[in-house]
Amino acid sequence: MSQKIMGVKASTGIAIGKVFLLANPELEIKMTPIEEPLAEIKRFQVALEKAKADLQGIAQHVEAEMGPDKVDIFKAHLLVLEDPELVDSVQSKIEQERVNAESALNEVASGFILVFEQMDNEYMKERAADIRDVTKRVMSYLLGVEFATPANLTEEVIIVAEDLTPSDTAQLDRRYVKGFVTDIGGRTSHSAIMARSLEIPAVVGTRDITRVARSSSTIILDGHEGIVILDPSEEEIAAYQRKKADDDAQKAELVKLVQQKTVTSDDHHVELAANIGSPQDLVGVLTNGAEGVGLFRTEFLYMGRDQFPTEEEQFQAYKQVLEQMEGKPVVIRTLDIGGDKHLSYLDMPEELNPFLGFRAIRLCLDNQDLFRTQLRALLLASVFGNLKIMFPMIATLEEFQQAKAILVEEKKGLQESGVAVSEQIEVGIMIEIPAAAMMADQLADEVDFFSIGTNDLIQYTMAADRMNERVAYLYQPYHPAVLRMIHLVIKAAHAKGKWVGMCGEMAGDPIAIPILLGMGLDEFSMSAASILPARKLLGRMSREEAAKHTNTVLTMSSSKQVEEFVRRTFEPINN
Amino acid sequence: MSQKIMGVKASTGIAIGKVFLLANPELEIKMTPIEEPLAEIKRFQVALEKAKADLQGIAQHVEAEMGPDKVDIFKAHLLVLEDPELVDSVQSKIEQERVNAESALNEVASGFILVFEQMDNEYMKERAADIRDVTKRVMSYLLGVEFATPANLTEEVIIVAEDLTPSDTAQLDRRYVKGFVTDIGGRTSHSAIMARSLEIPAVVGTRDITRVARSSSTIILDGHEGIVILDPSEEEIAAYQRKKADDDAQKAELVKLVQQKTVTSDDHHVELAANIGSPQDLVGVLTNGAEGVGLFRTEFLYMGRDQFPTEEEQFQAYKQVLEQMEGKPVVIRTLDIGGDKHLSYLDMPEELNPFLGFRAIRLCLDNQDLFRTQLRALLLASVFGNLKIMFPMIATLEEFQQAKAILVEEKKGLQESGVAVSEQIEVGIMIEIPAAAMMADQLADEVDFFSIGTNDLIQYTMAADRMNERVAYLYQPYHPAVLRMIHLVIKAAHAKGKWVGMCGEMAGDPIAIPILLGMGLDEFSMSAASILPARKLLGRMSREEAAKHTNTVLTMSSSKQVEEFVRRTFEPINN
Repeated sequence: MSQKIMGVKASTGIAIGKVFLLANPELEIKMTPIEEPLAEIKRFQVALEKAKADLQGIAQHVEAEMGPDKVDIFKAHLLVLEDPELVDSVQSKIEQERVNAESALNEVASGFILVFEQMDNEYMKERAADIRDVTKRVMSYLLGVEFATPANLTEEVIIVAEDLTPSDTAQLDRRYVKGFVTDIGGRTSHSAIMARSLEIPAVVGTRDITRVARSSSTIILDGHEGIVILDPSEEEIAAYQRKKADDDAQKAELVKLVQQKTVTSDDHHVELAANIGSPQDLVGVLTNGAEGVGLFRTEFLYMGRDQFPTEEEQFQAYKQVLEQMEGKPVVIRTLDIGGDKHLSYLDMPEELNPFLGFRAIRLCLDNQDLFRTQLRALLLASVFGNLKIMFPMIATLEEFQQAKAILVEEKKGLQESGVAVSEQIEVGIMIEIPAAAMMADQLADEVDFFSIGTNDLIQYTMAADRMNERVAYLYQPYHPAVLRMIHLVIKAAHAKGKWVGMCGEMAGDPIAIPILLGMGLDEFSMSAASILPARKLLGRMSREEAAKHTNTVLTMSSSKQVEEFVRRTFEPINN
Repeated sequence: MSQKIMGVKASTGIAIGKVFLLANPELEIKMTPIEEPLAEIKRFQVALEKAKADLQGIAQHVEAEMGPDKVDIFKAHLLVLEDPELVDSVQSKIEQERVNAESALNEVASGFILVFEQMDNEYMKERAADIRDVTKRVMSYLLGVEFATPANLTEEVIIVAEDLTPSDTAQLDRRYVKGFVTDIGGRTSHSAIMARSLEIPAVVGTRDITRVARSSSTIILDGHEGIVILDPSEEEIAAYQRKKADDDAQKAELVKLVQQKTVTSDDHHVELAANIGSPQDLVGVLTNGAEGVGLFRTEFLYMGRDQFPTEEEQFQAYKQVLEQMEGKPVVIRTLDIGGDKHLSYLDMPEELNPFLGFRAIRLCLDNQDLFRTQLRALLLASVFGNLKIMFPMIATLEEFQQAKAILVEEKKGLQESGVAVSEQIEVGIMIEIPAAAMMADQLADEVDFFSIGTNDLIQYTMAADRMNERVAYLYQPYHPAVLRMIHLVIKAAHAKGKWVGMCGEMAGDPIAIPILLGMGLDEFSMSAASILPARKLLGRMSREEAAKHTNTVLTMSSSKQVEEFVRRTFEPINN
């Protein structure tokens, strides 16, 4: 009989296939006295080398398939295996205590993991996960247990796992992996984000799928609804095959829109742009027909390394994006570090409330060397495309004025030394702090554009950390308080002839789109996968019609009322 | 020659007197082997008993002078001395390791302190401070070193200390202690808050005052300017005596205002109320002529204990305040726990951003037993005065509706069981979340009043934790973004015939007062010490005149502009 399991919708789409159970091997580690420590050390070294060879293979595969910036994690893993602190400790334990390699490795690694985990620092906690991941690999060689790996698949499967580690997801071969289901995780867990980025259907947080799913049995995965069906009946398979066919047909419809502009039924053009995290993401941007990049987060250049990127490294990355976008607008955001994002090589004091702390422009204005290097790299790249520079976390006009003055200074410096810099660079700010929204009329006098960062704006407006499960219900994009702020910003900008974009998740949300269109939002920037559905939706809506409802939603009293109204009123969103 | 030292203004006023150096005795602890462990244990027990007797004496003194709620800390200290984990560990260390009591105590206490300090929990960190404080007391008896204590003063002094512990400040005899100066601390440190609450001039954060001040030498303390003068010249003493005389004259002027209502020069009445944290604070409220209590924080009932307060305990506290205020309005805020305030007996998961977390009404709506108990206690007390109930951290209308519905249910329950409940209780909310400010027009339909909590409202509006030194500069009460929100709230409430108060620190700020008066704020609630100066200021200002400038400040672009404008425009604030 079939069994239905509910989970969290992590990535849309339907998949039907065979279960590939990526279970963690049960590694039973016993302590045994050994006679010949040198032979045991040799055994440890062999396992170490095999694990290294594995990781090098994965790194190559990843670099070829996913681009060099995704390789960092495996380089970090390799470094763990080469860390003398770890390796020497294991070897001297074997030698001095005359114990087997498994128990020596287990003890040393556990000690490291414990220390890193107890540090109150996300970066260090990640290091603990790295060590665990790597140790497991070495351990399975020592124990002669097969280390289940999705790297060597030869048939189409749906992966079922407790969770997917970065090394698991990096090895997923898109030709064979048609979806995945995990026990743990939520919409923002690593595996969920990876699924959406790979455009593979996924359901996470099922709690116990690995306990009930049997290898090679049939499984249906419905990423739209967050449902998994084990051992489905013939009828169920047939029904889901029809659903999948519908999906595919819709996708084919959407693909026709790739080369088109985004035009509403009453002939208004709005710009649909993509949010990207690195030059590698451009593939998705181009195949999904984005009309520009609305947000290029530059943090990737700074993370997963041990020193600041040079001006040259940054220049190359910015140039690459600008060139590939061939004159289409590219909004590059200056460094937004701090908050939940830390750099191992920049001393950032622990904060009680990092989201209300020393981050983004606040940190950059206080670390001008770092800021000026990035600005120079941007200015140098500006001649290779249509660059717009954006400052994050602006709360006051003075902050913008300071940042802009530094930019102007660097530009002048470059020009005086004879370097070509574009004269067309627009300079704008993120509106993600309530104070900036309230002061949009005055800020609009000095900036070239606004981009509304709804993820943070909603958090601050509702005073609720959306990563905090207990208050996540207050993260309400459709709440009239949020909509009023957005409306205020758009009105203020338009009154001064400036354009307004949005680069938070809300910009790609089918319920939000009619409201934002009605308010006159000029640019919608979203994950690449949302662009074509948004283009289709906008093509079937009239901006004039949508505008008629603006006042109605702004005078509603709750998120729920707004959502119901939109579903009732805007027919295209229901089709 | 005299020496001038700058510090942080912690509490206004001028004091001239002799230095009382409350230096921590240098406790040099050596480990010595001992011959007779039982005699050594006896010596330890004697020191323990002496320390206990000290603490009991202090506790009695504090209870008589400052009220029972200030005693908790000493009860906690006594508990430390009676903790078998600590006492037995020291004794068995003496016995088994045959070491002297000093080194045994030092080692055991250090271990405890280390463990508590490493916990990432404010409550536990405070326990570490308790153990340190108590251990020092026992240690000085063991070492025969005098434990400097301000409890036995017989002449007027100015206390000079590295910092003041809770047990130091609790023992301050106001007859003799005319001021104090510390090496460390800022405006919101324990010692600074205590100084303002005791209305004693104080300068903190001088860095090295204890190193340069000599016992019994003359010292001048200027709490207005944050200046300390050691060994002042005759001229300096004379000059500061004149300043102090001016101060006293001004205070005498202010005292005349105690019985008066607060009326502007154009005959508008505004209500000046006080913020209180416990019934003990009523003394200051009454002597400073407050026209009501604008904010009674009820957290004190829940903190520093090991279980929830009963309905009866709460009822007694609320009744006491209502009765003593004799029919004047008393706004009691329901529990605002969470954020930086924790209860040892309520399991509160650690949060990455507690200020954006599960606190106040969010927690109460999810812990209805706790909430209903408080509401019943409030309802029972309502017949003893003029009660207004206020819910904190309201972000959405639904939250208010839920909280109100629970209140109505409890009221009905009480009435059905024949208990008298006032029919005049007003029910309002704090406006401290930007979303609530944005939605004030809709909230005003359902509440009886608003009270603007500027401390949080500013934090969220500017996305800056004011406790975080690196972003504290963004905590800008006069920023036009903040003023616009406040204006929006007042206008929205008045349009629906509801009154608006303010209970953040801003309400007592001389720069903010003219702006708030102009906007039509109805009630200003502040620390008791600010009431008379505010009454004097308001008495010399015209509301009509102030209102003319509202639009000007709202269209300014920075906090600095606003401050300069107010100083230039409103003559009374400069006198």
